[in-house]
Amino acid sequence: MNQPRNAFCLSLTLALLLTAAAVPAWAQDDTEWRSVDAASIAYMQLPGGEAIIELNAEFAPATVAQFKRLVRDGFYDGLDFYRVVDGFVAQGGDGSDMGDANSEPMLPAEFERPWSADFAFTSVQKPDMFAPETGFIDGFAAGRDMQSRKVWLTHCPGVIAMARNDGPDTGSTDFYIVIGQAPRYLDRNLTIFGRVVSGMDVVHRVIRGPSEANGMIAEGEPRTNIEKIVLAEDMPAAERKSVQVTDTSSAEFGKVLQSRKKRGPPFFHHKPPEVLDVCQVPVATRIGR
Amino acid sequence: MNQPRNAFCLSLTLALLLTAAAVPAWAQDDTEWRSVDAASIAYMQLPGGEAIIELNAEFAPATVAQFKRLVRDGFYDGLDFYRVVDGFVAQGGDGSDMGDANSEPMLPAEFERPWSADFAFTSVQKPDMFAPETGFIDGFAAGRDMQSRKVWLTHCPGVIAMARNDGPDTGSTDFYIVIGQAPRYLDRNLTIFGRVVSGMDVVHRVIRGPSEANGMIAEGEPRTNIEKIVLAEDMPAAERKSVQVTDTSSAEFGKVLQSRKKRGPPFFHHKPPEVLDVCQVPVATRIGR
Repeated sequence: MNQPRNAFCLSLTLALLLTAAAVPAWAQDDTEWRSVDAASIAYMQLPGGEAIIELNAEFAPATVAQFKRLVRDGFYDGLDFYRVVDGFVAQGGDGSDMGDANSEPMLPAEFERPWSADFAFTSVQKPDMFAPETGFIDGFAAGRDMQSRKVWLTHCPGVIAMARNDGPDTGSTDFYIVIGQAPRYLDRNLTIFGRVVSGMDVVHRVIRGPSEANGMIAEGEPRTNIEKIVLAEDMPAAERKSVQVTDTSSAEFGKVLQSRKKRGPPFFHHKPPEVLDVCQVPVATRIGR
Repeated sequence: MNQPRNAFCLSLTLALLLTAAAVPAWAQDDTEWRSVDAASIAYMQLPGGEAIIELNAEFAPATVAQFKRLVRDGFYDGLDFYRVVDGFVAQGGDGSDMGDANSEPMLPAEFERPWSADFAFTSVQKPDMFAPETGFIDGFAAGRDMQSRKVWLTHCPGVIAMARNDGPDTGSTDFYIVIGQAPRYLDRNLTIFGRVVSGMDVVHRVIRGPSEANGMIAEGEPRTNIEKIVLAEDMPAAERKSVQVTDTSSAEFGKVLQSRKKRGPPFFHHKPPEVLDVCQVPVATRIGR
């Protein structure tokens, strides 16, 4: 119990990095990357820094189109995160979702899509507790049901989705970002239209609301401001950042998934079940100029 | 698509609060509370504020005893979070876990315990993807296996556990706090000895390390400082806060679990599977003087 550990230390650092660390080998140099098109990138400026969002027009074409139009109108600039539940979601916009509606058009539900073999679906877990099967499509965690032939994006940390009222087609402007353990029970009930690919540490700095008020932050109380949202395609090409994410359809990523399922390293004294939580598999991002 | 939503708005606010919000009724006044004994409370002062930790000496007696002794020695005061992986863990201490060992005693593995009917286990999910059964014991998420008759604490967001090297009995001083999607594959492989019951927003402000370095923050780079850790029992009684958490063995909490499983409200157009992720069930905390 009391022996010195010097003998361990050299090898242990590496062992811990690779095991307890759960940092996969592709964090090194063998990652295959996919470049994200500027048309799918939005920069959100918050007081703590910048979050970069990849929009998903394949799953949510109407929502992305309206979001982009609102961004161009400057709709969000200067608005707040007015409802923030620690461990759950940070919701921002003009608050119309919670009170007087604004005049923006309501959006059709884009909760799921018909399955098509055109989706580059890399399977992760079958079955998963919340879906017959999970996987990745273009870096987004997804679920699919091959019986009903439906596919949908899942509520993992960092996704951005449209808030709505009871009706399925009642979202319009106000969005939420998942900042806690994946609320997967919301899958197929709300329109996920993007994910934060960089800057979740910035999003996590958002001021929380009181839990007894369901996270609602009263006017006059400190709220985190959405200083500005800008679309990459509206910036001069020279000012855009290059955003690359792990190519989740690559063979290399497939190997990562297998290795994470097996948990082979000697660090594991209790062998975990050979399952993966799709929301716990990291998808790396590389930002350049 | 373009009709105004005024007609919806009065009823919708409440509907959203109760459904999308996923904020259970017990966030109101019918919660049954359990007072946490001062002997199980530690205050961690970080630059962004205070995190309050409930220690769990029932599951990790040796680890809690050593942690408390180290706190009293001032071991952690002024040390840093030196390895922080966004979406995974924030690891703090003197870095001995990563390099030269210090002279503190190593701890025995306290990964799981024999099942006993003395545990006030409130079942949540059976089976869960990572355990034959999950539930709560005194506000802590837990797993159990009635075949092997073992019970353990699970790696949910906010838990604090001892880092270790490859050997099971190699933890000693450096700890990590889970700051992302529950890394449940670590269950039964590390000693969880507490959980953050208040101030996860403060913990989330910890400076992240670069992902290409597995979150390691080089010396000289900005790191978040652990300013001070203090045990409640070492403070004058008049200065202690009263800390109460949801009594997870109460009938009221059992009702919450059932209602979360059923997802009855009209908000749900797609009925979610009747399952619960134990790490996604909120356990409320009430802090007083």
